[in-house]
Amino acid sequence: MSQLRLLKKPITNMSIPANSSATAAYDIVVVGSCMTDLVSFTPRLPKAGETIHGHKFFIGFGGKGANQCIQAARLGAKSTMVCKVGKDSFGENYIQNFKSNGVSTEYVGQTSEASTGVAPITVNDDGQNAIVIVAGANLLLNCEDLVRATNTIRSAKVVVCQLEIQPVISLEALKIAHGAGVKTIFNPAPAIADLDPDFYKNTDVFCCNETEAGILTGVEVASVEDATKAGSKLLEKGCTSVIVTLGAEGTLLMTQGQRAPLHIPTKNVKAVDTTGAGDSFVGALAFYMANYSCLDLEEMSRRACAIATISTQAQGTQASYPSRPQLPPELF
Amino acid sequence: MSQLRLLKKPITNMSIPANSSATAAYDIVVVGSCMTDLVSFTPRLPKAGETIHGHKFFIGFGGKGANQCIQAARLGAKSTMVCKVGKDSFGENYIQNFKSNGVSTEYVGQTSEASTGVAPITVNDDGQNAIVIVAGANLLLNCEDLVRATNTIRSAKVVVCQLEIQPVISLEALKIAHGAGVKTIFNPAPAIADLDPDFYKNTDVFCCNETEAGILTGVEVASVEDATKAGSKLLEKGCTSVIVTLGAEGTLLMTQGQRAPLHIPTKNVKAVDTTGAGDSFVGALAFYMANYSCLDLEEMSRRACAIATISTQAQGTQASYPSRPQLPPELF
Repeated sequence: MSQLRLLKKPITNMSIPANSSATAAYDIVVVGSCMTDLVSFTPRLPKAGETIHGHKFFIGFGGKGANQCIQAARLGAKSTMVCKVGKDSFGENYIQNFKSNGVSTEYVGQTSEASTGVAPITVNDDGQNAIVIVAGANLLLNCEDLVRATNTIRSAKVVVCQLEIQPVISLEALKIAHGAGVKTIFNPAPAIADLDPDFYKNTDVFCCNETEAGILTGVEVASVEDATKAGSKLLEKGCTSVIVTLGAEGTLLMTQGQRAPLHIPTKNVKAVDTTGAGDSFVGALAFYMANYSCLDLEEMSRRACAIATISTQAQGTQASYPSRPQLPPELF
Repeated sequence: MSQLRLLKKPITNMSIPANSSATAAYDIVVVGSCMTDLVSFTPRLPKAGETIHGHKFFIGFGGKGANQCIQAARLGAKSTMVCKVGKDSFGENYIQNFKSNGVSTEYVGQTSEASTGVAPITVNDDGQNAIVIVAGANLLLNCEDLVRATNTIRSAKVVVCQLEIQPVISLEALKIAHGAGVKTIFNPAPAIADLDPDFYKNTDVFCCNETEAGILTGVEVASVEDATKAGSKLLEKGCTSVIVTLGAEGTLLMTQGQRAPLHIPTKNVKAVDTTGAGDSFVGALAFYMANYSCLDLEEMSRRACAIATISTQAQGTQASYPSRPQLPPELF
């Protein structure tokens, strides 16, 4: 596979085009995943060999990268997505979804080698999920795609990465951005225990949830104190700041050289659907880092947390993400 | 719901339009289901609360009604489908699929009240399936839709029904056809134990597999002898002929007034994928009943069996159904 051949050759040795004035400048570049959620509601989950009748089905737009990009765009950030979808109807629909949300599709590639990423999800009557992820085209996002987007990454205000594409591609995107002095947010989701240490060194804001913090540090995170312990370990690995999101408990912020942890609580609300709230937080944080760089990270986190909390008040993932006109003016 | 109100009023009392010369005549009318198969291949099946990574995903066209209609059309029958899909991309794609296969879409309704029927299927590395069926728009096919298609049903050569829509709608379609002297094939799939006795009375060829024969008669069918016992019970309920399909063993044919069962074996082949082979058989049988009425039912069954066997030699459901030009001339 040409992709594997490319990966053996470090991207730093590849011919990266010189910065050209023809490249549009974006506030935010997200290098990451698109997934089509295929959600079935059934009385219970089927066993092997079984056929079960469900009572409802819907298709949703998901994938951590795209979720974060769309939340940032809805807040008003000029955003572009570097990703890959299939040459199929899910891919076409996803491109339309980006356009409808004002996200540039200049770097959305389409491949006939794999299907658009899908997540068939079965939800039983107790609200328990069983999720299958077929990453498909997401895993074919390759170095060539990054090279094509290099000038755009270098000229962005903020670059955001996760782990739903090949980790080596996320890392290279962070390196290109960090090397050019662009602020980087890394969301290590889904977490992998043996994360390449270079991820920490090329990350300005390392933003993870309790589970991910636990997998990365070996510290089980069940309280703000646990999160502080995990946060310290993550800072020691070399990133500038760490944010651990704590669900209803808000977030914990820790920064190099200022090790006193800041616990930022959130408004107490009754959540309707927390799916995608973490991505809403990351997208909102990227927006504030790009467009409100005068604020300190504490205030940015507080506002991003307020926006993620609002997203839990409605059903759906992207469907629940608020747009700027729906939000109180004090957030801007 | 208007549909429920309609169902309380017997369709025989409804205003059925007089036969109009403007109605196109079809060889075959299938009143039944359309499903979009969403097939994921995973190492194992996910449990509640789990996320599993799969290695492949594809979308297929399925639903017993549509499968049978498309097999008949590929053999050269002028076919139309009475069904309902959602006003969504799966619905649009299905309509296009009918058109590509030369099936008339005059009676394919679209509703915004439910999604197109879907069947998310997980196949593990041992080849075991777990299937969820969300019938969606299929269950909204109603009496009004039948009334609109009445002249077409009455002027067809063969009408084919199954049980993936509301059984009362299948039964009414069979009654309209039978009342007008149109040949009827009924495929009681998926089987329901307490099937309305009128199904038998309005059916010329009652075509089921071993499992369905077992559920309908209480006779566990594991051999040709068992199938004969079950077939006798089905004939006693009033249908003209019974065909029990027996997989690699071929089929068993029994007819009123000629109770000696005919076992029609099939060619011994190594199957690649038997999914949808039963629907290939029913579709092919409908084609022969409509277009080769000079043949006896034994010869029709033999040829339909040959076609279904060919469909097991390729992957996929409709994707594996042969078209007339690919078939040996002795089948026509």
